[in-house]
Amino acid sequence: MTKSKKQVQERFSPSRERLHELIFEADTPLGKLFDIILMIMIIASIIVVSLETVDGYARQYGDVFTILEWIFTIFFTIEYVLRLYAVYKPIKYATSFFGVIDLLAILPSYISIFIAGTHSLMIIRALRLLRVFRIFKLGSFLTQGETIVKALKMSRAKIGIFMFFILLSVSILGAVMYLVEGEANSGFDNIPLSIYWAVVTLTTVGYGDIAPVTALGRFISAALMILGYSVIAVPTGIITGDMMKASSEDAENENNELHSHDRTNTQACRYCSYEGHDDDAKHCKYCGEVLNAVAEIDDMAAS
Amino acid sequence: MTKSKKQVQERFSPSRERLHELIFEADTPLGKLFDIILMIMIIASIIVVSLETVDGYARQYGDVFTILEWIFTIFFTIEYVLRLYAVYKPIKYATSFFGVIDLLAILPSYISIFIAGTHSLMIIRALRLLRVFRIFKLGSFLTQGETIVKALKMSRAKIGIFMFFILLSVSILGAVMYLVEGEANSGFDNIPLSIYWAVVTLTTVGYGDIAPVTALGRFISAALMILGYSVIAVPTGIITGDMMKASSEDAENENNELHSHDRTNTQACRYCSYEGHDDDAKHCKYCGEVLNAVAEIDDMAAS
Amino acid sequence: MTKSKKQVQERFSPSRERLHELIFEADTPLGKLFDIILMIMIIASIIVVSLETVDGYARQYGDVFTILEWIFTIFFTIEYVLRLYAVYKPIKYATSFFGVIDLLAILPSYISIFIAGTHSLMIIRALRLLRVFRIFKLGSFLTQGETIVKALKMSRAKIGIFMFFILLSVSILGAVMYLVEGEANSGFDNIPLSIYWAVVTLTTVGYGDIAPVTALGRFISAALMILGYSVIAVPTGIITGDMMKASSEDAENENNELHSHDRTNTQACRYCSYEGHDDDAKHCKYCGEVLNAVAEIDDMAAS
Amino acid sequence: MTKSKKQVQERFSPSRERLHELIFEADTPLGKLFDIILMIMIIASIIVVSLETVDGYARQYGDVFTILEWIFTIFFTIEYVLRLYAVYKPIKYATSFFGVIDLLAILPSYISIFIAGTHSLMIIRALRLLRVFRIFKLGSFLTQGETIVKALKMSRAKIGIFMFFILLSVSILGAVMYLVEGEANSGFDNIPLSIYWAVVTLTTVGYGDIAPVTALGRFISAALMILGYSVIAVPTGIITGDMMKASSEDAENENNELHSHDRTNTQACRYCSYEGHDDDAKHCKYCGEVLNAVAEIDDMAAS
Repeated sequence: MTKSKKQVQERFSPSRERLHELIFEADTPLGKLFDIILMIMIIASIIVVSLETVDGYARQYGDVFTILEWIFTIFFTIEYVLRLYAVYKPIKYATSFFGVIDLLAILPSYISIFIAGTHSLMIIRALRLLRVFRIFKLGSFLTQGETIVKALKMSRAKIGIFMFFILLSVSILGAVMYLVEGEANSGFDNIPLSIYWAVVTLTTVGYGDIAPVTALGRFISAALMILGYSVIAVPTGIITGDMMKASSEDAENENNELHSHDRTNTQACRYCSYEGHDDDAKHCKYCGEVLNAVAEIDDMAAS
Repeated sequence: MTKSKKQVQERFSPSRERLHELIFEADTPLGKLFDIILMIMIIASIIVVSLETVDGYARQYGDVFTILEWIFTIFFTIEYVLRLYAVYKPIKYATSFFGVIDLLAILPSYISIFIAGTHSLMIIRALRLLRVFRIFKLGSFLTQGETIVKALKMSRAKIGIFMFFILLSVSILGAVMYLVEGEANSGFDNIPLSIYWAVVTLTTVGYGDIAPVTALGRFISAALMILGYSVIAVPTGIITGDMMKASSEDAENENNELHSHDRTNTQACRYCSYEGHDDDAKHCKYCGEVLNAVAEIDDMAAS
Repeated sequence: MTKSKKQVQERFSPSRERLHELIFEADTPLGKLFDIILMIMIIASIIVVSLETVDGYARQYGDVFTILEWIFTIFFTIEYVLRLYAVYKPIKYATSFFGVIDLLAILPSYISIFIAGTHSLMIIRALRLLRVFRIFKLGSFLTQGETIVKALKMSRAKIGIFMFFILLSVSILGAVMYLVEGEANSGFDNIPLSIYWAVVTLTTVGYGDIAPVTALGRFISAALMILGYSVIAVPTGIITGDMMKASSEDAENENNELHSHDRTNTQACRYCSYEGHDDDAKHCKYCGEVLNAVAEIDDMAAS
Repeated sequence: MTKSKKQVQERFSPSRERLHELIFEADTPLGKLFDIILMIMIIASIIVVSLETVDGYARQYGDVFTILEWIFTIFFTIEYVLRLYAVYKPIKYATSFFGVIDLLAILPSYISIFIAGTHSLMIIRALRLLRVFRIFKLGSFLTQGETIVKALKMSRAKIGIFMFFILLSVSILGAVMYLVEGEANSGFDNIPLSIYWAVVTLTTVGYGDIAPVTALGRFISAALMILGYSVIAVPTGIITGDMMKASSEDAENENNELHSHDRTNTQACRYCSYEGHDDDAKHCKYCGEVLNAVAEIDDMAAS
């Protein structure tokens, strides 16, 4: 294993190591700067894509938008190629979560040359912003996020059952309202529409595009709302309870181990593209690859 | 007792025993397969009933829908008859919760031959999906569901009082708004309508089909919303508190007994149709009937 | 004291004592029957008042409604007079909470003879239903209700501050939206209207009768909603916390004292009209009057 | 230090000291009276500004409103000048939070002479009402408010992440709905509008000014609502949990220290304008200035 790694490492020039550090990690000032510029470009590109769909702006600044869009796309394309070049196993990066997102973020621009109207899909670039947590070493944020995720996982089964019953109630209520209101009210023309209405009502969104008009329909709706309002407090109750459990468990763990900030190390393995290494790690815990190659090269050069 | 059971058992051929196992239980691969096919057919039948009410689809695929509907109905009818045949006391099954649902699921099709427009009632088939928990042995789901039900039961009295006061407030507010808005606004034409509006507002659904237009009416509404918003947090608070109590009690029980998964045994007694037996039960705990007759028969054949 | 009571008691015939027991208490079968009939009449009278405002019904059953209304009014009037007659100090009953409600429940009918359109005020009769807790000895309900009231009292200060900030935000946001949307949108014609809109939005009622139409207005609204949605979780959090505290305190008290059901004794003092006596009380704890006079008279007659 | 303070103090006549006590503090009956009159004038002035925007009232009472407005403005201007005069370092007061608010509260009136339509900004006077807590020594209210603020601070990170994901979801959903509904529905004309719709839906406000009309759009909306409804319980859960933690920590602190009411002392330093001194403080804890100069002068005069 050590041998094969050595071989791979020998194929890599120091500049390629530095490139990896620059675009994948955020430990060095340059690496951080790169990531911040990237974030700004992503946000700018999302704003441009959004504004382009507004008639008034499109007519006035249409050309500016198109140019900006292509600048962003070319920048992201170069970045994507560099990312592929900077890792040992490009295929591993390309199939990772962020690898797929990075590709999906540039594809719509090229597809829109052939198929009109697809460039709104570029909004998928927003997902690239998820990297923000890694860049700013938002450790406490991540831990908090994990508490939320943990609470949601603990609540999964309960929320699953809850949704199953919501779906059942909504289907049956939709059918009942279709029978009651169907003839008098074009909003309850068919059962799927009535089910849509039931969802809009139960979740208290209440657009009002469809509303009961018959006395019986209104009575059933009011009963549904009052009952629903009391019962629908359930998911809040579930999540609150599990959130408090999860958060007290976390507090205990923190007292015992005290390494919550370790999770935000921004090292990314050049070999297998995995992240999430400890701060004192020298080798990737998944494939054994040396992690901080640039520092090593610098050390060698210094000695 | 043992004697009478023996007699009943003797009347049953092994094939009938196997039929019971096939359609009532989900322990054997075949039994599970049967249940999964059943679930799929129920869902498909609900979708067909729903789509049939959509004008566009009805015109285009009307005949297909009708044929599919009758296929489902005939399948469910045969299944219902087989269920009656597979138990010792058909009347016990027929009057059980699922027995009634199973019958209600097929009746609308036959009634719709004589009375037009009733086949939307077929959506009641959705209730048959409640069997899903038994089929997939969703043990942890069931336990979680029990926690929810327990919390709702604990909250019952508090929610009852809460609803009583909601109904009182809504009635009085409805009458007040009828006096205030009645003349200027056709939405507050009569007290029942005003009460309907008060319910829609208090539950924050807010369709907007009825909305105050006079200055005084809007002032009262705004006061109602702000006050209501603070007070209406009550049911959430109630359920959260009781949910946490119920869930901590459950956690204690689990530690002591550790048989929460027992509850999902899919055995169903042939004699009295009761379910909910323990995994190691050999006899029905309600009537004493031997539970796993097929296995017994197989054992006898083997020996 | 004992002397003065004796004198009063001597003025009362046994039949008057029985009348008091009949209409004020619910311990004897007859007393309970009277209260149940009363409840039914109140509910029926509310329904009649409500339906009378519906055009269709009014035209068809107008006369029936008028007759029914007068029957109810006369019944309630007789009942009110009897209540005055059955207590030692009519003035004390007349100025008590239920005494005032009982009077307000019959006044609108008589006023409506002189001033048209006031009989909708009869809906105030709904408040008489609050007696329901006493009649059905809904002990556990009352205790639960007290927990809710306790939690609301504990939360009072926090909810007060919360509402103060809501009112401040809503005023300022209303003025801002008036400036932003005022010209383009008739819904934001003046500041009070804009404040009404802000309340409708912040409480997530969202009628849609007033909605922003300019880009900036929509942006501010969206920001308000997202921010508001997170912050507005506060009252729920406050009440949940205090509800749990209140309910755990109650649980402790119950363990120590175990007389929660005592609170629902339906005895009412003939002398001072106070209620809430313990089950084993022989004398009113407020004025010393003998409580269960009828039983005493019966005892005397028997001996 | 003592020397420089002495010098400053010598420049101040007793009447100026009394003026400071009158308008900045609320310990003396006169000081309290002044503050109450101020509060009433602020509220009256807000009501006048609001009503002035209502067409009907403006036409009828336009002149009265204008006169009242100028009376309020002149009163607030004099008050502002007196406040500047009553403190040692006017610049410190002028740049403090309340100093800025006090200035902003009078500026719009003067600006409106030159630029029409700006006087609605006077509503910013509402912020001056924040002083209410200090005037009425609403100690327990303040402590409660601190608990809320503490809980919100503890929840900050979690709510931050939550909002980040809300913004991401809303952007992506907006773009998806733009693609799905864009052509059939003028409400989804462009991505920013669709994002606005997604916010209105996710927060369950649901105006209904924009609502999906295509089958697919409605299906996506319904899925969004059901999912959103379960997940959106998260902020409530977060705040409830942290509120309970914060409130139990407060309860502990109170037991140990018992000086929660200290926080509402209304003394304000004449020198540095800081507030929040302890009840037994003789000198400003920020600059060392003598706090209760008037009492001192009275003492000197008495001796």
